[in-house]
Amino acid sequence: MSDFVVRDPDYDARIRRSFARQSFMGLMGVELCHIAPGAVDLKVAARSDLEQQHGFFHAGVTSSVADSAAGYAALSLFEAGAGVLTVEFKINLLAPGQGDALLARGRVVKSGRTLTLAKADVFALQEDAETPVATGLFTMIQKQGLAD
Amino acid sequence: MSDFVVRDPDYDARIRRSFARQSFMGLMGVELCHIAPGAVDLKVAARSDLEQQHGFFHAGVTSSVADSAAGYAALSLFEAGAGVLTVEFKINLLAPGQGDALLARGRVVKSGRTLTLAKADVFALQEDAETPVATGLFTMIQKQGLAD
Amino acid sequence: MSDFVVRDPDYDARIRRSFARQSFMGLMGVELCHIAPGAVDLKVAARSDLEQQHGFFHAGVTSSVADSAAGYAALSLFEAGAGVLTVEFKINLLAPGQGDALLARGRVVKSGRTLTLAKADVFALQEDAETPVATGLFTMIQKQGLAD
Amino acid sequence: MSDFVVRDPDYDARIRRSFARQSFMGLMGVELCHIAPGAVDLKVAARSDLEQQHGFFHAGVTSSVADSAAGYAALSLFEAGAGVLTVEFKINLLAPGQGDALLARGRVVKSGRTLTLAKADVFALQEDAETPVATGLFTMIQKQGLAD
Repeated sequence: MSDFVVRDPDYDARIRRSFARQSFMGLMGVELCHIAPGAVDLKVAARSDLEQQHGFFHAGVTSSVADSAAGYAALSLFEAGAGVLTVEFKINLLAPGQGDALLARGRVVKSGRTLTLAKADVFALQEDAETPVATGLFTMIQKQGLAD
Repeated sequence: MSDFVVRDPDYDARIRRSFARQSFMGLMGVELCHIAPGAVDLKVAARSDLEQQHGFFHAGVTSSVADSAAGYAALSLFEAGAGVLTVEFKINLLAPGQGDALLARGRVVKSGRTLTLAKADVFALQEDAETPVATGLFTMIQKQGLAD
Repeated sequence: MSDFVVRDPDYDARIRRSFARQSFMGLMGVELCHIAPGAVDLKVAARSDLEQQHGFFHAGVTSSVADSAAGYAALSLFEAGAGVLTVEFKINLLAPGQGDALLARGRVVKSGRTLTLAKADVFALQEDAETPVATGLFTMIQKQGLAD
Repeated sequence: MSDFVVRDPDYDARIRRSFARQSFMGLMGVELCHIAPGAVDLKVAARSDLEQQHGFFHAGVTSSVADSAAGYAALSLFEAGAGVLTVEFKINLLAPGQGDALLARGRVVKSGRTLTLAKADVFALQEDAETPVATGLFTMIQKQGLAD
């Protein structure tokens, strides 16, 4: 993935500004923890109000952080002035989300003029262990004239 | 869909109890607004902390309510004592989620012994209009011995 | 779905010409059996060389006819001179494909300038009965300057 | 993926026998070219009757070989006497399938008692080059008492 072309050298600051405006990420307490061309990682700490009925992370939390990680991975390769929207995604939940935190790694698979395909892998973190929790594929669209 | 078999006559109360334990639904302010065999509707009012960077409902909110609506639609047909987990889902986002609220309609497509396929359609509500925002397919698994 | 806009009044002949060039449909013996704006049905008769290891229709046959039905449903609403390509699809296999034939009904869900979302439902036909075999969602892209 | 548990030491012969019964693979001229625990590769040479309307490999061919590669990757880890069925899959088509052949690499992502998640990547082969054509996720189910 070393051959990704960066079209906006300001991509890091741009993603941070956009992420800060995603109020829903703030509501869940999600943090940006890694940005590189075609790659963004997000992390969310366990909290009693992020659970489903059995006390695991809700699948909606898992898929929301996966979606944002994949979307910002896509945005990292866009031109300045182009925004990102999710066209569709598919996610498989591999194991109940249990642990201290979830880490979502968004990675671009194929960067195109209009559409970008990204994947996201989500892991549950517990002390030193990473357990795979979910994996998904995300189709993103680049929209000119849409704020980042 | 009139031929769905109800295995637990207490399904309505059971879904309400389970939903009340999904703390993540509470965090987002989601309400249960319809329960029938194979069918559950959820509604979430617009709020400034449910947005993505352009001020629309975050795709994570849309997919979270769709997932829960589909999951409870599946659970409505399960035996007492069997819980529901999402195996995987795929969702297409048809239009930005803008309006006063989102309404997610979860409906069972095929009810099986182990796996249930459900769909969910999400609409943005604005005054009298319903605009389709998303549609998805959700594979759910029935787990014996898992609390509802 | 009555509000679909037909941009090319010649859509029926155009789909027939394009379908005739899909040699893979010919290899499987697939027939076009219904064309309307936003809707195309395809049918394939059971044959000993379309099977998987248990004697059912191969999931690849099921998904191939579903994909073509969805793609031509999308194409029925395109301008003259625009071709269709599948961006991605997801399909759930509901029951083994057993019977005299498979019928795939492709229907447009949302028609957009660049992307079209279509669904396809596949049924096994046996005497007078239709059994649901598969259901899927297909994202199609309109490509200018690509032959139909 | 080195920690996969092989439950049936006869898995290689078993996959070859099962594949030989998938008459649809024979119709398309697909060959088994690699079998290992959790991994199966299939290859199909370009042929004039495997095309869509623009002369590329039909998306149905691409997804059919991906589905079979993923399914046999899953089967390689099953007990003797358990068969495999596709529950659902999602595939993204990254580029038109053009070249001398398609190669589908099926790999198990997570092997479970009932469900197995596999992925498949499909490449177009042209002289010495491999071009990514498609990538997908496949949920497979293990069925006791179903012939391999």
